Amino acid sequence: MSNPAKEILVIGLGLIGSSLAKAAKNKGLIVHGFDEDKNSLEEALNKNIIDSSFESLQDINDKSLVGKIEILIVAVSPRATQVVISELKNLWNTEITITETSSVKNQLNFDSPNNIIFSHPIAGSDKSGIGGIDEELFLNKKTIICNPYNANEAHLTKIKNFWQHALSMRVSEMSVKEHDLLFAMTSHLPHLISYALIDSIRLAEKDVGDNAGGGLKEFIRLSGSNPEMWKDIFELNEKNIIKSLASFQLSINNLLELITKIKEIPSSFSHSDILKNELEEIKKYKEDTF
Amino acid sequence: MSNPAKEILVIGLGLIGSSLAKAAKNKGLIVHGFDEDKNSLEEALNKNIIDSSFESLQDINDKSLVGKIEILIVAVSPRATQVVISELKNLWNTEITITETSSVKNQLNFDSPNNIIFSHPIAGSDKSGIGGIDEELFLNKKTIICNPYNANEAHLTKIKNFWQHALSMRVSEMSVKEHDLLFAMTSHLPHLISYALIDSIRLAEKDVGDNAGGGLKEFIRLSGSNPEMWKDIFELNEKNIIKSLASFQLSINNLLELITKIKEIPSSFSHSDILKNELEEIKKYKEDTF
Repeated sequence: MSNPAKEILVIGLGLIGSSLAKAAKNKGLIVHGFDEDKNSLEEALNKNIIDSSFESLQDINDKSLVGKIEILIVAVSPRATQVVISELKNLWNTEITITETSSVKNQLNFDSPNNIIFSHPIAGSDKSGIGGIDEELFLNKKTIICNPYNANEAHLTKIKNFWQHALSMRVSEMSVKEHDLLFAMTSHLPHLISYALIDSIRLAEKDVGDNAGGGLKEFIRLSGSNPEMWKDIFELNEKNIIKSLASFQLSINNLLELITKIKEIPSSFSHSDILKNELEEIKKYKEDTF
Repeated sequence: MSNPAKEILVIGLGLIGSSLAKAAKNKGLIVHGFDEDKNSLEEALNKNIIDSSFESLQDINDKSLVGKIEILIVAVSPRATQVVISELKNLWNTEITITETSSVKNQLNFDSPNNIIFSHPIAGSDKSGIGGIDEELFLNKKTIICNPYNANEAHLTKIKNFWQHALSMRVSEMSVKEHDLLFAMTSHLPHLISYALIDSIRLAEKDVGDNAGGGLKEFIRLSGSNPEMWKDIFELNEKNIIKSLASFQLSINNLLELITKIKEIPSSFSHSDILKNELEEIKKYKEDTF
């Protein structure tokens, strides 16, 4: 096995930060931690999720950490990520590799530090906070990395090694633009749709609880995601979400026009047959793709 | 334990019919079966899913079965349900209790036979056909029954006993109208949305396969459902699905207006705070309800 970093620092000990801290510790890494919430920080220490703690971002923003900490991971909300990394300017352009775990990236805008690489470990839960810790959250999943500031091969290799060997994940690279559009389609829109579907059931004031079939289960789960984080994601990735929503609406409308038989089709076809063909093509795409 | 029927006949040995036949046999019932597909019928016999088979609907439409078969269950597609039950007129208004398992009921329209009760065992799978058989498919789940023709207490008790004791399900009763609206909201619309979401990803021609996070998983699963059956359900429950879709669109639009900050709100509030509150209320409803 390639050698992952020996000593890392995790800022933000919520679901993502605490889960990856614990997983890295299990692989033998030394893990330092910081959270502005003192209770979370204390819990992380008491539960042996981290080996030692920092007191403040000011203490972390210290060049003397260079040569000691190999990777610094910022695992806070998408908006706070910009703020936290901006407060660590003394560590920019050093040998420490700085990364972060935000689900949306276009809001991250730094003055080209050559040691910052973005990461998105694709895993989540409707749980949030250190209470939701799951050391297997990332196991065998995938991390996307984006390298908008052209960090050099040494930083790239270090980050890839970390995700692959300390967290047992696959790694692939794409641009920030690709990332944000792709995750608008595959994650952000599904969350928005789930919130809206459960909201529409709420507003219907029907007693559905006991009658929700399997088809509703995942919508229910997603609609219980962390509102603070998802508000940020929806706002920050607004354009891509609207783009994805527009495509979704086209597909809904196409199916609806077939269901209601108002679509203009050649007279030699039937709406029912075309509807069935459409559903079959979607099913086939699903089977070929996922 | 109350006594479920001793001898039943299942027409249609797809996923639902074969799964319930096997589960009932496991509880000691004698299960006869019929499927117009000879291969399925033979497979059901060979795999001991049914005890004996009928050759045709004509053979089943025979008064001499009265006193022998206690419950006849029609487990075919929503449209075929109307046809099959219509071909069994000799068994109408007899001691045999006739039921069916369609996910949509408003298309079922018979001349008030006093022994027909509708059932909807709420369970499903993206698998279909006898190959998807799962004798635990219904275990501890729920069956809705509708009694539009006022079948008497003896029929009702027999059907309830069957679902409760032969299939280990909970039973509750509602009207056909309530049933079709409720399942438009909790099952049919989620399926339509899932087909449309996966369709929109298909049409985007992006390579997403490996990058689908957990949020997409259930949409993927639902979009692989049986097109033949779902075309029927969408068409037959069109009005309720449109009603549910309209409510969903209102909720999407509300969230979208908050995300894009174009909603008219009092100047003392912020769009972000209202968006977060909305998401929190939806999450709270989800936690209180499901």
